[in-house]
Amino acid sequence: MLNFAYHLPVNLIFGAGAADLAGEQAALRGKRALLVTGGSSARRSGLYDRVTGSLEKAGVGVVPFGRVEQNPLTTTAEAGADAAKRSGCDVVVGLGGGSVMDCAKAIAFLALNDGDISEYIYGRLTGDRALPLILIPTTCGTGSEGNGFAVLTNPATGDKKSLRTPAVIAKASLIDPACMTTLPGKVLASVGFDALCHSMEAYTSNAATPLSDSLALTAMELAAGSLVPLVTGEDGSMEAWEKLTLASTLGGMAIGTAGCTLAHGMEHPASGIRNIVHGQGLAALTPAAIEALLPGRPERFARISALLGGTGAGDCADAVRELLARIGLSVTLGDLGIRGEDIPWMTENCLKVSAGNLANTPVPADAAMIEDIYRRCL
Amino acid sequence: MLNFAYHLPVNLIFGAGAADLAGEQAALRGKRALLVTGGSSARRSGLYDRVTGSLEKAGVGVVPFGRVEQNPLTTTAEAGADAAKRSGCDVVVGLGGGSVMDCAKAIAFLALNDGDISEYIYGRLTGDRALPLILIPTTCGTGSEGNGFAVLTNPATGDKKSLRTPAVIAKASLIDPACMTTLPGKVLASVGFDALCHSMEAYTSNAATPLSDSLALTAMELAAGSLVPLVTGEDGSMEAWEKLTLASTLGGMAIGTAGCTLAHGMEHPASGIRNIVHGQGLAALTPAAIEALLPGRPERFARISALLGGTGAGDCADAVRELLARIGLSVTLGDLGIRGEDIPWMTENCLKVSAGNLANTPVPADAAMIEDIYRRCL
Repeated sequence: MLNFAYHLPVNLIFGAGAADLAGEQAALRGKRALLVTGGSSARRSGLYDRVTGSLEKAGVGVVPFGRVEQNPLTTTAEAGADAAKRSGCDVVVGLGGGSVMDCAKAIAFLALNDGDISEYIYGRLTGDRALPLILIPTTCGTGSEGNGFAVLTNPATGDKKSLRTPAVIAKASLIDPACMTTLPGKVLASVGFDALCHSMEAYTSNAATPLSDSLALTAMELAAGSLVPLVTGEDGSMEAWEKLTLASTLGGMAIGTAGCTLAHGMEHPASGIRNIVHGQGLAALTPAAIEALLPGRPERFARISALLGGTGAGDCADAVRELLARIGLSVTLGDLGIRGEDIPWMTENCLKVSAGNLANTPVPADAAMIEDIYRRCL
Repeated sequence: MLNFAYHLPVNLIFGAGAADLAGEQAALRGKRALLVTGGSSARRSGLYDRVTGSLEKAGVGVVPFGRVEQNPLTTTAEAGADAAKRSGCDVVVGLGGGSVMDCAKAIAFLALNDGDISEYIYGRLTGDRALPLILIPTTCGTGSEGNGFAVLTNPATGDKKSLRTPAVIAKASLIDPACMTTLPGKVLASVGFDALCHSMEAYTSNAATPLSDSLALTAMELAAGSLVPLVTGEDGSMEAWEKLTLASTLGGMAIGTAGCTLAHGMEHPASGIRNIVHGQGLAALTPAAIEALLPGRPERFARISALLGGTGAGDCADAVRELLARIGLSVTLGDLGIRGEDIPWMTENCLKVSAGNLANTPVPADAAMIEDIYRRCL
């Protein structure tokens, strides 16, 4: 019996030049924007100036908040919300990669909801309002522009876990594939692999629906055809950038309804404890996670394998390993700084922060399985 | 260069038994519901009683409005809006096929927007509000539960044209495949063919995007695999009903962003002048429309042909003709009561009411082409 629900009110504006619509889109929703950014890459590329110029031209005041770190902290989001409230911002613009967009979402949420964000993350408090949010992705991986998730790390506990509420679905996502072309190859490899993981996990999730399947399959096909050639430089055409950028957004939408599964669930404790790059953590964990989950949905892993050049479910993990080798992302958890003594904490933390992801895995994942996979990936 | 926008905030609850959620969903949005229905089929099947029971159990008052006709009139929508206002309804529930759902949308819209509905249909007035709307489809064809279109016929002019506004996207669509199983074979053939046409037209529309493609391709595959066996009785399983029902919703979503093209654009004047059954009008027109549009997107028509059992673009129209023969829907416009002398009015009216659809056609469609197709389909 087919039963599902689908509600994903995303508003996507896709195409080269979309970032220049920031002012027009923000002006529909407010008069003063908190402009959330991370490091300096958007400044170096000139994109920051384009976006502030667009906002100012549309008569929208700009209050910069430029201190979002990789694996953004709950405390950073709290500081951003304080800044938004103090300066009277009525709209939030997030310009950056997944960390920036997720932090912008949490800031927009905390600006209108009192109390500890961790209470909302663990579902002990709920809120259905947020400042209107405009997102402008500068990486093609997270897909945060296509869903209502914001992953944050609590520095007091090391818990890396997502706030999930339709309130933080962007009022407009301005997805500009031309913004991705300046990504360094190593960053591209890890964000692009994240995008692929979203689609693979959504497609094999227990919560998959015909709508998420349709999004995930399209996204996998697009990513499979563009990630390797873009990273190797074999194809740097705008068409290839468009494909990978769209794959990223569609992957974000797919997990927005079907959720992630084991590899994402296990990566969060790893980057929670050691601040590792998300896509690298996924690279270390994904092949072994696929091998563990294969028996749950063999026909779906066979389809993934075929899209990646494999021959069936049996070599799906190897097809992923080969893709990782081609994009220079063959790593172990040990390479990323994880040590054997971290594993008990990570296992316990995974059961705590990733309960939702674990419920989606097509083979039940218990502590023993999780610990075993961590050890094999060291 | 790939440029598109996508914003389709549908809220779908799909599965056997979904209709019983009417009360719960309506109670989230109001206290007194105008229950919009058509003829007596929902009463005969017991569905009407289930829905009123569900509403009453949830404490939602029910004001029945049961007079929606096939090809609903603007005047019926006006009467419904008057009834909603007079009786203080704050939510509208549409229980029926495409005619009922479209009329319910227009009623919800007119209840909060003053002035002549034709002014809104022709875009001379705009409104962004409507009473909250719950839709429960009882046919698997229109897909009205998946978009913001409401097709109405103005009895004074014969113009059959859609109101298009996000305001009339349902707040919840309760899509219950078990409700379709009592459809008479002849009705099933014509509504199911309408669903297939939506996907075929959206997929070949100039306004197609990767998102509408993904929806349309999934929908075509589902419809191609279920329509004929359901109509012939070869397969009456719940799985087949689920497939066709989902194909219908996805088709509605696909046209919700990519629009329809020539066959729908030409069918509206035909049913506007002679009140014919929409799916039958499409059956008379679609093969010839495909032949005319083939050169514009041959690779896409080839893919449709393959899904229907054909071998390439060249036999796409014949593959559709064969499908129509198998579901007993091989008809001409003449069979449906259209006469040669109607054609000049229909041609002129098509250019007027279907300008949007004509802009989507992959081969430019002028008066001469339209008149020629009408004559060949007589």
